[in-house]
Formats: sequence, structure tokens, C-alpha cells
Amino acid sequence: MARIVMKFGGTSMAGIERIRAVAARVKREADAGNEVAVVVSAMAGETDRLVGFCREASALYDPREYDVVVSAGEQITSGLLAIALQAIGVNARSWMGWQLPIHTDTAYAKARIGTIDTVALDRSLAAGEVAVIPGFQGLSGDGRVTTLGRGGSDTSAVAVAAAMKADRCDIYTDVDGVYTTDPRIVPRARKLAKVTYEEMLELASVGAKVLQTRSVGLAMKEKVRVQVLSSFTGEDAPMADTLPGTMIVGEEEIDDVERQLITGIAHDKNEAKITLTGVSDRPGSVAAIFEPLATANINVDMIIQNIAHGSGSTDVTFTVPAADLARSIETLNQARDAIGFGELIHDTRVAKVSVVGVGMRSHAGVASAMFTTLGQRGINIQAISTSEIKVSVLIHEDETELAVRVLHTAYGLDASEAA
Amino acid sequence: MARIVMKFGGTSMAGIERIRAVAARVKREADAGNEVAVVVSAMAGETDRLVGFCREASALYDPREYDVVVSAGEQITSGLLAIALQAIGVNARSWMGWQLPIHTDTAYAKARIGTIDTVALDRSLAAGEVAVIPGFQGLSGDGRVTTLGRGGSDTSAVAVAAAMKADRCDIYTDVDGVYTTDPRIVPRARKLAKVTYEEMLELASVGAKVLQTRSVGLAMKEKVRVQVLSSFTGEDAPMADTLPGTMIVGEEEIDDVERQLITGIAHDKNEAKITLTGVSDRPGSVAAIFEPLATANINVDMIIQNIAHGSGSTDVTFTVPAADLARSIETLNQARDAIGFGELIHDTRVAKVSVVGVGMRSHAGVASAMFTTLGQRGINIQAISTSEIKVSVLIHEDETELAVRVLHTAYGLDASEAA
Repeated sequence: MARIVMKFGGTSMAGIERIRAVAARVKREADAGNEVAVVVSAMAGETDRLVGFCREASALYDPREYDVVVSAGEQITSGLLAIALQAIGVNARSWMGWQLPIHTDTAYAKARIGTIDTVALDRSLAAGEVAVIPGFQGLSGDGRVTTLGRGGSDTSAVAVAAAMKADRCDIYTDVDGVYTTDPRIVPRARKLAKVTYEEMLELASVGAKVLQTRSVGLAMKEKVRVQVLSSFTGEDAPMADTLPGTMIVGEEEIDDVERQLITGIAHDKNEAKITLTGVSDRPGSVAAIFEPLATANINVDMIIQNIAHGSGSTDVTFTVPAADLARSIETLNQARDAIGFGELIHDTRVAKVSVVGVGMRSHAGVASAMFTTLGQRGINIQAISTSEIKVSVLIHEDETELAVRVLHTAYGLDASEAA
Repeated sequence: MARIVMKFGGTSMAGIERIRAVAARVKREADAGNEVAVVVSAMAGETDRLVGFCREASALYDPREYDVVVSAGEQITSGLLAIALQAIGVNARSWMGWQLPIHTDTAYAKARIGTIDTVALDRSLAAGEVAVIPGFQGLSGDGRVTTLGRGGSDTSAVAVAAAMKADRCDIYTDVDGVYTTDPRIVPRARKLAKVTYEEMLELASVGAKVLQTRSVGLAMKEKVRVQVLSSFTGEDAPMADTLPGTMIVGEEEIDDVERQLITGIAHDKNEAKITLTGVSDRPGSVAAIFEPLATANINVDMIIQNIAHGSGSTDVTFTVPAADLARSIETLNQARDAIGFGELIHDTRVAKVSVVGVGMRSHAGVASAMFTTLGQRGINIQAISTSEIKVSVLIHEDETELAVRVLHTAYGLDASEAA
């Protein structure tokens, strides 16, 4: 017997037929003697519908009321899944965020989970009930409904798993695991049996959109073993405890034999590049650029300060999320006098390609192999950033697929023909 | 300054444009210095959508989970109305049923309101906030969400008005008041300025579908002054405290000058007639018919036991809601041996027409005038039932409109040409 959390996303909950399929999947785990809590998203499209209502009602909607409105989506699916489970003989009941409760802070619309009270939950599980819990929602200290921000149901699942000391948190999604890279680009991409929290964080944040980044961070902090697996397999799918998906675990769970130099290659086309020319080469000028962007809550990623022209001025290039480009330009123009720059040049036709792997901690040469491989194919590198387990380069958008493919081969990640 | 409850139905909440119109109406009352609580229904069609999901998930759905699902509709509109109010400068916040809380019993899906805790509500109103409260929902003693059954938002509004000792409960609906009869049938029907609780109960239960019957009963019990008025008038509509709708009040509020013999004429085509022939004319045979129907929760209305044929057997005729006809036939056939009857004849082509008025308490001749009027037009009466303030007859469905029209004229209810 194990304690497990199963999490199903909006596509899995889109309509009663799919909810019935989820119920059958949950029943298999319950029938196998496991204590099961299920965390559900709203039906696909429902959250967008509700958010649309709020925006239509007021561009400057009160996030406290927004949370009342949008939390309804998960409330609906959790009740429906409980009904569908009961219909196939599974003892089940729903628990709203305010009922357990799932305590959060008061940052409405983007709340963070604090503690989860498990007294009622433990009693329910001990009584043989499957607990169905709406994702994405909680209860603030003011006694009001909160939501966690988009994609928050993954975080809810991990938080519930941590609170109930679950053996595993299975995230059912529309992919069947985490791959060495996007299989649509590289057909020979391989599914990873295991990946570390840190690698997953890097892969998630650079565009491998399998799990919400915050949920991976929480899993790492709370040491929750998370499995990503497919919700689109039939009754004959392997049981989740045979680990058919990708396990996200601590580094200590990956032994030396399994360890690869590079775990995966991610790409992200949602970046925009900004270059400020003629920035005066004096102390404080760079701070004058990035301070107003930080105040505007714009996340700057890669930064390059070009070598000064000898003229006492320099060019500064950096990337921001493409969605924040317009706001970035506005912010920088407002700060123009304080910064003192010539031109503002921007370019959204860029992509960030990253190689990720905990193995690079103990191996030199990963970055230079990357630059060499790209250089041999004539791919120009516009910016570079690195972390302990990642090297990212900014290239022209049109060369993304080529770059991913050649790097996948160069780092020996291609599946053998036989596989 | 007055304390008022404003209640808006699903048609008024159907879409953000209409919610904005509701907000404008609420703002007028708040700006006039009133303390205002607003009770809202779900968007028109939304409750049906959610009920449909539950039924699709399981024909035998758990009413506790059904309540979780369907209560989401009012949750959504209450958040949206709070946002729309804030957008036009009105200090407003939503209060879910579990937040106030609105205590109910544990009869999930058809719960009854017990007490409403007004501590938080009073504080909110005193702080100048408009309280937006989802109708139809409450909190059971088990800490779970309940709903009150279809149409329950009217009852929520009256219960909130009673709890907060409101001066008035204004029910905004798609008609502008209570009429002497259906204006689609009788163009010269008049809007009533006042009607007593008891009359309204009779009018509501016999087919004048303006207010949920239970809400009128509660208003009578709690002495809540209820006004029915139209939500479909523009900014230039009269303020509600000028009483442009119909006030539902205690009999003591209607003085002799205003009092009419007959207040209104209602009709109801949702009845079905059942006749059992050859029922043995012995003690207990009638009980044998109605006991199983009561057990099956079928509401029998008019009952006639014909004069025995001298053969020791009799015919028993009665009416049930047309929606319960199939279940009634099944129930009676199962009890056939216990009852002992010849044939079961049923007819849905019937209508009940009722004349209602507290004035008939002190006036004889109301019923005979009704029978005479109908007889003169050749309308055959199939059954009769009476209460202290009502006379109902069952007639052929095709004669409904004619009967209503001639009775409206006969009792002097037609508006003068000038009106």
C-alpha cells in the first residue's frame, strides 16, 4: 500500500467522458490498495472563459473577486469526478480548498500555499475514501478564496503530496513523460526515466512546458517524488507504480550508471532581444537600465555588455519575455534621461536554446562543445548565459530546429534505431 | 436610509453587459444612502448546464457533490457583480454561503435555511460596503456546501432580508409586478400595487410564476416586505422606494378601500388528471390509493370521489403534477392489488383555473359566481377544490384562455379603457 496523489489537467477533465476515464484510472489505484488523493484542474477552456468574464467586467478587477470567480472551475470538476467515482463503486468525496483547508497567503490571484491541514484528509483516507481536491485554490488568512496563478494545479498536487507525506505524486498530462528534447523536432528524442529536480527546473523554465516551474521548486524543497505520465492511455496502460513515465527525483536517486553528461535540450521562442546603443560607459549606467525594469516586474534573462567603442559609450543587449516587450520599451523610454542611450533596437525573431544536465558540474567542455557544434553549422550565437547545470545561447529564431537537432546528436542523446 | 435586499435572477445576470446594468441599479440605491445586500442567481442557462454535467456523470448522483457543482454558478456571478460594482466606484464584496455563513440543514440539493450569521454582514454594511451574496447556496452542519433546490435564490433573498432586518426585499424579475392575471391572455389585466402573502402563495402555487412559493411562505413567516419589480427598465426607472412594482405584505397593510373581493386569476396547465374506476367502496380504499403516492413524494392536488354506482364500487379522480404522471401510474399499478381498481384513465389535456382573494373570506357567493360564469360559456368543470381564499376548477386545457378572460371580466378586474 502506498499513499499517492494523482493530478489531472484540464484536457483530462474536458467533458464527462474524459472524467469517466480519469475515474477508471483512479479506481485502479484505489483497488490496488493505495490511499489516493486526486487533484484536478478545471475543464479545458473553462478558466479562460471565467478570466474573460472578469476582464470584461473590469480591466482593473479586484483579485479577491477574480479568485471567487475563477476558482469555480476546479470546484465544478472536483464535484463531477467525485460523482463519477461513486458511479463505479469508489467511495469518494470532494474537499474544497476552504474545507481542508489549504492555507495560503493573501496574494490573491497568485497566492502561495502555506500549510495544508491534513486532519480531515487523513481521517477521510483512513476511512477508505478517495479525496478529490480542486487544484489552483486555497483559503487566505482573511477567510477568502485564493488562487495560485495559472498552472497552479501542479503546485496544489505537490503541496498536497508533501502535506500527506505521499510516496508519489503522479502528474497525468498530455505527454507521457519528459523527453531529451521536443520529439516534434527530433523524432529520435528519448523519454527520460529519471530527471533531477534541478534539471527539470531548467528544462521547464526554458520551454519544456510539462510542469509548472513553481511546482518543481516546491517538490525539490519538500522532496516529493513526482512522476509525469500520460493520461491518454487506455485501461491496459501499465500501473503507475511500475513508473511508465518520468520520475523527477533528488540527485541522490540517480546512480552513476544512469547519469548522462547532458540530460536534455530545451528551446524557447518566447524571448525578445533589446539592444540599447550608446550607453555611457560609467558606473551606475547598467543599474539605471535594469532597476526600472525590475520595478516594472519584468524578468530580464540574458545580458551582454559589448566592449566599449573607445568612445566612452557601449551597447547593452538583453532579453525579456516577448509578452513584456511593449512594456519594456515603454519603461526604458520613460527612463531614457536617467540611462542615457542612443537607440533602442528590438528583435523578437530570436530563440533561446539550452543544454541541461547535472553531469556538467563535473565535466568541463560542455559549453565549448556547444559553441563548436553550432559554429560548424553556421549558426550565429547572439548571447550566452550559463548556470551550474545549463548553457543557453540566443540564436535567430529560424535556426532553432536545426540547432536542437545537431546538439541532440552531438551530445549522444539520439535514441538508437532499434529503440 | 433604509436597509434593503435586492435580488436579481438569471436573466438579469446573463452576461457582463447585463451585470453592468444590475450594478448601475445597485449603485443608485447605495448612492441614495441605503445599506444594500444583493442576492444573485447564476447566469441564465448556467445551472442547467451544471445540472446536465451531474446527470451525465451519474443518474444517481450524490446530492452533496451535486451541490458542490451547481453552487458554482452563483459563486461566479457574485464575484462578477462585485467587480462590476467596484468598476463604477461602489465599495462592494462577495460573501459565499459558507463565509457568512448561511446555515442550512443537511437535505442536500433541497436544503432549508436555518439561521444566517449576520455578524460579518452587519460589519460589512456598517463599513459602507455593498454585500453581494450568491443565492441558492448555504452551509450544512457537516461543513459542506448545500443548495436550496431550483428557484432557491428568491428564498435566499428573503432569508437574508429577514436576518438583516431589512426594510424591504426587492425581487427584480422579468415581469414588472404581479398582475390580476396573465397579461398575455387578458391585455386588460392590471398590475397590483399590493397583494397579501397568502394571496401570493395561492397565485404562485397555481401558476403565476413570479416568485418561488417557498420564498413567499418564508416572507410571510418572517414578515419581510417583498417587492416584485422589473429589471428591464433603464436608468430613468423610478427608484424602488417609490414602489413601482407589486408589494407583497401582510393583510393588515391593505386597507379596506384597497381591498378587492378577488385579487387575481391564475391558471396552470401542468396538471394531469387520473381516474381510477371500480374502486371498492369500503373503508381504507381511498387511503390505499394516496398512501403509496405520498410515499413516492407525489403531490396530489384535487380529489373527487364520485357517488358510488350502487354496485359497491366508485370512481376516484385526482390531479398530480404532469411531470409526475408516469411515476404516478407506475406507483398505482404496483399498488393495484392493495387498492383494487378497474381501469386507470389519465388525461393531461386539463388546466386548473383559480380565483384568489382574501376578500372572499367575508363574502359568500364567489364560488357560485365562478360556476355560473363558466357554465354560461359552456365550460365544463371536471373537478373543484377550494381553500379559504381560493376557488380552483379543473377544465379542458383548450378552454383555459376563455375561462380566464370571462372570469377576469366577471369579477370586475378589467382595467378601464383609460388606464
